[in-house]
Parts: sequence; C-alpha cells; structure tokens
Amino acid sequence: MLKAAKFLKDNDGFLILTHRRPDGDTCGSAAALCLTLRAMGKKAYICKNEDLTDRLLPFVADLFPPKSFKPCKIVAVDVADEGLLPDSAKKYAGKVDLCIDHHPTNKKYAALTWVDKDEAAVGVMIFALAKKLGVTPDVKIAEAVYLAVATDTGCFKYANTTVKAHRVAAECIRLGADFHGINTKFFVIKTRARMELEKEMFDKMIFSKDKRICATVLSRAFIEKVGADNDDLDNLSSLTMQIDTLLCGILLTENTARGTFKVSVRSRTPVSASRICAAFGGGGHDRAAGATLEGDPSECVRMLMSEAERELSHV
Amino acid sequence: MLKAAKFLKDNDGFLILTHRRPDGDTCGSAAALCLTLRAMGKKAYICKNEDLTDRLLPFVADLFPPKSFKPCKIVAVDVADEGLLPDSAKKYAGKVDLCIDHHPTNKKYAALTWVDKDEAAVGVMIFALAKKLGVTPDVKIAEAVYLAVATDTGCFKYANTTVKAHRVAAECIRLGADFHGINTKFFVIKTRARMELEKEMFDKMIFSKDKRICATVLSRAFIEKVGADNDDLDNLSSLTMQIDTLLCGILLTENTARGTFKVSVRSRTPVSASRICAAFGGGGHDRAAGATLEGDPSECVRMLMSEAERELSHV
Repeated sequence: MLKAAKFLKDNDGFLILTHRRPDGDTCGSAAALCLTLRAMGKKAYICKNEDLTDRLLPFVADLFPPKSFKPCKIVAVDVADEGLLPDSAKKYAGKVDLCIDHHPTNKKYAALTWVDKDEAAVGVMIFALAKKLGVTPDVKIAEAVYLAVATDTGCFKYANTTVKAHRVAAECIRLGADFHGINTKFFVIKTRARMELEKEMFDKMIFSKDKRICATVLSRAFIEKVGADNDDLDNLSSLTMQIDTLLCGILLTENTARGTFKVSVRSRTPVSASRICAAFGGGGHDRAAGATLEGDPSECVRMLMSEAERELSHV
Repeated sequence: MLKAAKFLKDNDGFLILTHRRPDGDTCGSAAALCLTLRAMGKKAYICKNEDLTDRLLPFVADLFPPKSFKPCKIVAVDVADEGLLPDSAKKYAGKVDLCIDHHPTNKKYAALTWVDKDEAAVGVMIFALAKKLGVTPDVKIAEAVYLAVATDTGCFKYANTTVKAHRVAAECIRLGADFHGINTKFFVIKTRARMELEKEMFDKMIFSKDKRICATVLSRAFIEKVGADNDDLDNLSSLTMQIDTLLCGILLTENTARGTFKVSVRSRTPVSASRICAAFGGGGHDRAAGATLEGDPSECVRMLMSEAERELSHV
C-alpha cells in the first residue's frame, strides 16, 4: 500500500478505470478513490464504462471527465486483466500506471500493482488507503466503500467475508452511509424482468433421477420478451444452489448469437464444477465454472447432465 | 447491564427461557448466555421449547436440563412479554428473575429487566455481558452470538443493523465462528416446501390497476400439500416488497382453523401498513402489520385491497 499511496501523493490528473460488466466493487472503489483524491486537492475522474447499469450509475455519474480532460496518470481498480477493460477504456491498455486489486489471478499488467488477495473487496483496500493518505472519509466515500464491500460479499453472506470487511462496514455506517438504501437496491428489490427470469428458470428446471443435479435453459427469446438487462441476468446460476438436495446446478443462457449458450455450473463440495466444464473446453473454480456450447438446447442439457452424473459418480 | 451482570455473578442454577416460535436471536442469545455462565463454573440450562425447528435445534440441543434439575433462577432472553413464552415455559410466568431484551415494547414482567432498544439483537448485549463477566467467548459462544446478530438483521441487510452489530460480527468471525455455514443455512438454502410456497405466492398474486398494491393467498390445503413447517412460512410477506413498483403487499395465510386467515401487510414509506390492518382490528408497525380475517378468501382480499387503495389515495 505504501508505494501506491506515494504514487498517488506525488502525482495529479488521474483517470480511474473500472472493469467490463462493472459490479459494485469496481464502481464503489473507483468512486471512493476518486473522491479521496479530490479531497486531497487533486484532479481525478472515472473513465466512462458503457456497461454501467441503472443501479450503479448514481455512484459514479458525477465523476466522469469533461471532454477537455487529459489524464496524466491511469489507475485501474478491481481489474485483474487488461482484457477485462470495457471498450471505452481499451485505449489505455498497456498504459496503466497503478492497479489496485484483490484477485489472486491479477496479471500484473500495470507499472505498479497493489494486490491484496486476502481482502474481500477492493473497497476495503481503498478505505485503508484513504486513511493512509490523511483523508477522513466523508459520507459519500463511506457509501461508495459500503457498496463495494456489501456487493462483493453478498451482503456479508459469502465465505470471503472477513473480520476487516465487517469492521469497514461498521465504520461506513458510523460515517452516515445509507446502508439500508444500498441493501434494499442491491439485495431486496428485484425488477419484474428478474422475477420472470427466476420463475422461468425454476419452471423449466429438470432434475436427475436422484435429484442431485438440475439443469435449466433461458432462451434469448424469453430474455428479450421480458426485457432483461445484464443486471437481471447476473448470478442467476447461484440460485440453483438454494435447493438443499442439489449437489450440482446447470444453467444455460442463450447468447445474443442464437443457438450458442453460456453455460454456468455451480456445485457443492466435493463436486467439481470446473471438471464438468473442462469436458466442454471451459473452466473456472471448484464451486463455480463456465463454458460455451452450441447446438440444440435439449441436446446440450443432455450432454451436460451426463457429464455431471459422471462427476458425481466419483464422489 | 451492571445489575444484570451482578445478578448472574451472585447466583447459580439458572434456567434460560426463549420465546414461542423461536428465532435465531432468542436461541443464539440463550445458548451464548448458557455457555457464558458455564464458563464461570455455574450450572445453567436452556428450557425446552416445543416450537424449535430443525435449523435452530443444533444450537441449543446440548443445553437442555436433565429431569433432576431444579432451577434456582429464571432468565428470559428476547422475550418481550410473558404471553410469548412457549407452553413448556408457561409455568415460569410471574417467576422470571431477569429479562434481557431489546424490544421497546418489553412489558417489564421480570424482577429485573435489562432492555436496550437500540441494539439490533439481544445477541449483541449477551456478547458485551460475557466480556463484562470476565468470560473470553470461545468459538461456540461466538457462533451463537453470530447466529443471533445475523438472523435479527437479515444478514446485516435490514435498517436495524448497527455499527455495533458489525463490530460484534467481526469479533465472532475472529473467534472462529463458522459464519458461512450459518449464513448458508439461514440465508441461502431453501427447502423444497419453501420454494413451492414462494412460487404459489407469486403465481396467485393479483395486482391493483396501478400495480402499487398486490395481494395473494396461501391456502391451508396447499401448505399441507407441500408439507411446509413454521420455518417455511416465516417472513413470506416481506417477499412482496421485492417488486420494485409496489407500495403495499398483502399476504393471507389460511390458519389451521380453516376459513380464518392470518393477514400480513408490508408497505413502503409513506404507506402505513398498521393503518390498513387497524381497519380490521389488527395492528403493528408502519412498514409491517397484521390482522386476522374470516370468510371467503376472495372477499377478504377484496376488502383488504380496497382498504389499501384508500390508504394509498392519501399519500
């Protein structure tokens, strides 16, 4: 952190980059960093990101640069790989001066990289950084940090939640962050389209004989019919793990390129989602993995179910 | 807290009471207090509660008294009113020596009452009490406290979440509490019956013309068909507030006495759920209230919808 703090202290004219299909951590961290730098009297902006959804926009909308702004230094937050930059930031690939991240898979593409893989969210790192830089976080910074921490931990539900994540959340609430408003927006309210997607997912769900595997398909026609956006489609596959009897849940989402499917596999210990996906040229983590398949959806489901059954027969 | 601490220090042979239809706070607080007293070398047990569900039982199962146990002092946790004692503890009504609670509505029925209405959960109070009594919480106490705090705050999502709740959660995690196991059990996994209830609720939902009010009915026949227990039925009405356009959600659950309905009304500011319920002899809070109705379910829904429309016409 010390090198990152010195770099930020010694320079000015910052442009902050977020990742493609932005989430609460990349947006919240960018906003908190931007506001921290401004509190130090520096010029700082957040680079536009064409994938921003309605829920996230308010946290960064005031921080986009005017046309006249010429950035001197480029900082990326929560961006593990330059390949994850949105189109609007692609031109900064190879030119990132500082990267602040918590992914163990960070590609070290920046001139200076600060990765803390033990942190639940980059937001936690930015909060510590602000203090190190002598900035007392105001309510706006606290809200941006809370957004980052709450969304990356599933509102303190996931296994990645740390002692520090809770302590930072406590600080943010003490500083006046509207945590309830943020939680309602990100963890309670659903759009009509999201509800329809969830219902379709469960309506179309098929189960293996022993009820330990399920698979379901969302067609592009249905997605378009209900008017779902990327936020609505996010993290649907994890819902299959709500069912207590299941060891493996498979979701096929038809891409905009019809007839091709994004496959998401979720599993419970000891079933390996990544082994199942590897059989189709995909990969990922033990509990969550992905692949791409092409063809008739029922045939795709059949192949995936049979591969999952093979995986389960070993456990 | 000081008087409560002195009372516990000066006495022995404690029986701890939980409330009817027990939740994570009453069970977690009872377990944490019981283990704290035992760590002080005292005899302490938790009174059996016939309403305990499978999810909660493991937290208290080892702490029930043997038949030979004759309690000297009775302590109630999270029990606002003696009328809320389960049948198995009814005989202690009028004999409670100490009550530790956070409900502002506490009836002060005990000889000594410690109420902190600003605390999100009684578990937070027990954690502070353990420290005051000189007990360093072990992992079992930490898990019981985490259960209490997480469940009473909706996993840190609700408006009642405090700075202290997060700090105590941080401490519990530091002490080794299996927070992820608890969260998975209470906030991720659903029984098949719960999923069926949620589906039925949304399938049967009717909306007012302006989509600001919804109402839905769960018949006893359906509840029995899917084999739902009290845990499955808990807090279903809050799900109506997931829909972003809604200002008021009404759920009628048919009681075991057929033809009578438990009415739960949820609302968003400024709609008063308690005003709607008051029209039918019920009551509660601004955002969540209840009543009992009898008769034909469609007629009950019609009356409730019309009362809700009247309430909305004022806002």
